[in-house]
Amino acid sequence: MSSLDQVLAQIDANLEPALQRLTALLRIKSISTDPAYAAECQACAEWHARDLAEIGFEATVRPTPGHPMVVAHDRSAGGTSALFYGHYDVQPVDPLELWDHDPFEPQIVTRPDGSRMIKGRGSSDDKGQVMVFIEACRAWKQVTGKLPITVSLLLEGEEESGGVNLPPFLRDNAAELRADIGLICDTNMWDPRTPAIQTMLRGLCGEEVIIHAASRDLHSGFYGSAAANPNRVLAKILAELHDENGRVTLEGFYDGVPELPNALRADWDTLGFDAKAFLGEVGLSVPAGERGRDALEMVWSRPTAEINGMGGGYQGEGFKTVIPAVASAKVSFRLVFDQDPHKVRAAFRKHVQARLPADCRAEFIEHGSGSAIRFPVDDPAFGKARQALSDEWGKPAVFIGGGGSIPVTAQLKSALGMDVILAGFALEDDRIHSPNEKYDVHSFHKGMRSWARILDALSR
Amino acid sequence: MSSLDQVLAQIDANLEPALQRLTALLRIKSISTDPAYAAECQACAEWHARDLAEIGFEATVRPTPGHPMVVAHDRSAGGTSALFYGHYDVQPVDPLELWDHDPFEPQIVTRPDGSRMIKGRGSSDDKGQVMVFIEACRAWKQVTGKLPITVSLLLEGEEESGGVNLPPFLRDNAAELRADIGLICDTNMWDPRTPAIQTMLRGLCGEEVIIHAASRDLHSGFYGSAAANPNRVLAKILAELHDENGRVTLEGFYDGVPELPNALRADWDTLGFDAKAFLGEVGLSVPAGERGRDALEMVWSRPTAEINGMGGGYQGEGFKTVIPAVASAKVSFRLVFDQDPHKVRAAFRKHVQARLPADCRAEFIEHGSGSAIRFPVDDPAFGKARQALSDEWGKPAVFIGGGGSIPVTAQLKSALGMDVILAGFALEDDRIHSPNEKYDVHSFHKGMRSWARILDALSR
Repeated sequence: MSSLDQVLAQIDANLEPALQRLTALLRIKSISTDPAYAAECQACAEWHARDLAEIGFEATVRPTPGHPMVVAHDRSAGGTSALFYGHYDVQPVDPLELWDHDPFEPQIVTRPDGSRMIKGRGSSDDKGQVMVFIEACRAWKQVTGKLPITVSLLLEGEEESGGVNLPPFLRDNAAELRADIGLICDTNMWDPRTPAIQTMLRGLCGEEVIIHAASRDLHSGFYGSAAANPNRVLAKILAELHDENGRVTLEGFYDGVPELPNALRADWDTLGFDAKAFLGEVGLSVPAGERGRDALEMVWSRPTAEINGMGGGYQGEGFKTVIPAVASAKVSFRLVFDQDPHKVRAAFRKHVQARLPADCRAEFIEHGSGSAIRFPVDDPAFGKARQALSDEWGKPAVFIGGGGSIPVTAQLKSALGMDVILAGFALEDDRIHSPNEKYDVHSFHKGMRSWARILDALSR
Repeated sequence: MSSLDQVLAQIDANLEPALQRLTALLRIKSISTDPAYAAECQACAEWHARDLAEIGFEATVRPTPGHPMVVAHDRSAGGTSALFYGHYDVQPVDPLELWDHDPFEPQIVTRPDGSRMIKGRGSSDDKGQVMVFIEACRAWKQVTGKLPITVSLLLEGEEESGGVNLPPFLRDNAAELRADIGLICDTNMWDPRTPAIQTMLRGLCGEEVIIHAASRDLHSGFYGSAAANPNRVLAKILAELHDENGRVTLEGFYDGVPELPNALRADWDTLGFDAKAFLGEVGLSVPAGERGRDALEMVWSRPTAEINGMGGGYQGEGFKTVIPAVASAKVSFRLVFDQDPHKVRAAFRKHVQARLPADCRAEFIEHGSGSAIRFPVDDPAFGKARQALSDEWGKPAVFIGGGGSIPVTAQLKSALGMDVILAGFALEDDRIHSPNEKYDVHSFHKGMRSWARILDALSR
């Protein structure tokens, strides 16, 4: 029996104690965005450090201007090194009345078909997914006394609240944290039976624009048509972000956006992505983006401009004939390949300025930016991880794209020069950030086994 | 000394008691929109009925499904008959902290130049302006024992809260209320020295549109560009309401909109309207409406489309990458001359429907409509009233337009077939609907004298 087989058997035999440890972790109310829970965040970091020390890591809790980081190392193996990143903080729990139990009193529920899930805030995002990695390390240590490769962990406490302290922490501790490869377990399976590694992530450029006109709200009877209406000015600015074919009109927006490479296109074609089901699940039927593109391309490899919020004037019950003094919109651009978020922001501001009539001025608020990420799928580490996942799940793992952004991947790349293997076991119905968040016990169990295999594969 | 001169002298001699009566009226908290003040509204109606009975009117308080009406008649004179309409209800007082005194504890304040004002909710809108008419009647009765013409009063208690019970009340009591001419004192002077009669009022068509797309809010990372974004759909619909020249694009919108008649144009030219000052006062400088029109034309004789409110998605602090399920806007059209509000509403809905992409649907909510009003300025009654005002103020009174709507004027016309003389003495700085509402004692005094003269003039 190989070491790996023994480790997998150890994991199988110790699922219940592992679940108990996760349950204890889920009880800690580490809501990072609310200062009232600062002590709980500290306690959660300390819980992790203690637990990692028990496994045999050198584990420390490191202060930051915000919530602390947990840093842990196990250099017993030498050879290839990996840095696992995760976060111990969770989203707030409002609206509390939509939970069917106390969000911090985890429940293990058995479904009629015998499958189980663990319910509680953070069960999937990200405490459950962090613990599958840590439990894999624990099993390796228990069985062999060491890990297959050198492993460091960095657990952040502010992922759900902006994460402003992470980039300086990475810079200040680059020498300590740098490794051959990054590992993150904070993503989804492709579907409940198909493991996936995300190798492309869209970037983001978030921007708020506020159009100012008159010095105060005006009555539209007295001033209507004579006074500039910022709602009208804003509507025109926003409407002209796209042309008739759904393409974004900003100057130079498609610079650095190639057609999808054939190899990736071929890979994605094997996924059997069901656009009808994807849209149908939310009551839609027709991909709304660029004419001639399919829905998967739209969300994975094409850039977008979306109006995430807009508002101006009276929005309450009934009617008020007001011409507001201001109107505003929050706009985000999802970026792909080599688009430059700073150029996109500049082009947006130019687009706005060019459409301001007399008496109107624009105020801009920057809401973050990050370039798109592509990892080198030809790198052997990615091939090994893919094979390990395929072996565990009995089905080829897929390299997929992702519509959203995971800023830490860009930060690990820029601060530490590391590529990251994003392998996660969450499912679409895990309700992360929502009431009644859960993580399937099957995800937890197979996730531990998957990471045990990936650690082994990376050592070869 | 003519009867009129004696009446004017009586008014001059009794300014202080008249102010005391107004003060008593202003103490009654007749906020119609808040059910908590229903008893105060009833008390206010009863106050008026008692006061009018003291003067010699047959006065009754008439129930409606909402707050009551006050109806009073004095038929002592015979001959020409007039129906004076006013309202005894007032706007809410929020935000209370912006008042420098209790809004229902009226204050008479003397300015450094010796002029006085009476401060309190309703002092200008409309209790003060109603009392100038009633005090004029009181003086006539005190001096001559009768009024120069037959006078009825109709005082409404729901003008500030929708006024839904007025049209059926007018219909049900048409025979009792019908008169040769309507009189309303709820408007402004042209400027503090120039009396005015409003003879044109824009109509209004208010409409709310709600664009529905996905069945729930979506994450723009996962769905961005593949999912229809109602903000984007709405922005396009709203942006395309106007063309490059500021003209409204709705089909048939300008049907029934002639160029301004030369006589009126000439009249308005004498006003010395200062567009620079009008816009400058609110921080603007350039008329924003149809190219080639001046600001006065824009607000008095040209129709408009204004976006009074719009909203969709996340509008709070910070940023949320959401694609909302719905977005909505409140749009109003100010109408002139013979524009048909129902046709305008239908054209707007057609405009919306024509711009709905796949997966989007529009819901519409009607928010009232009224045609534009023009009164026959050649009618002798208007000439007599204009002369009476000119005599009182020592300056020619002007026939002006008005950008806003006064729905009761259309209702009196349609239910009772009456034209209405709109002569009011409020000033632009009266802060109606706002904290620290006031009415100048000069407006009150000269207003009483003005109505005393108008009643006399209409009898000739």
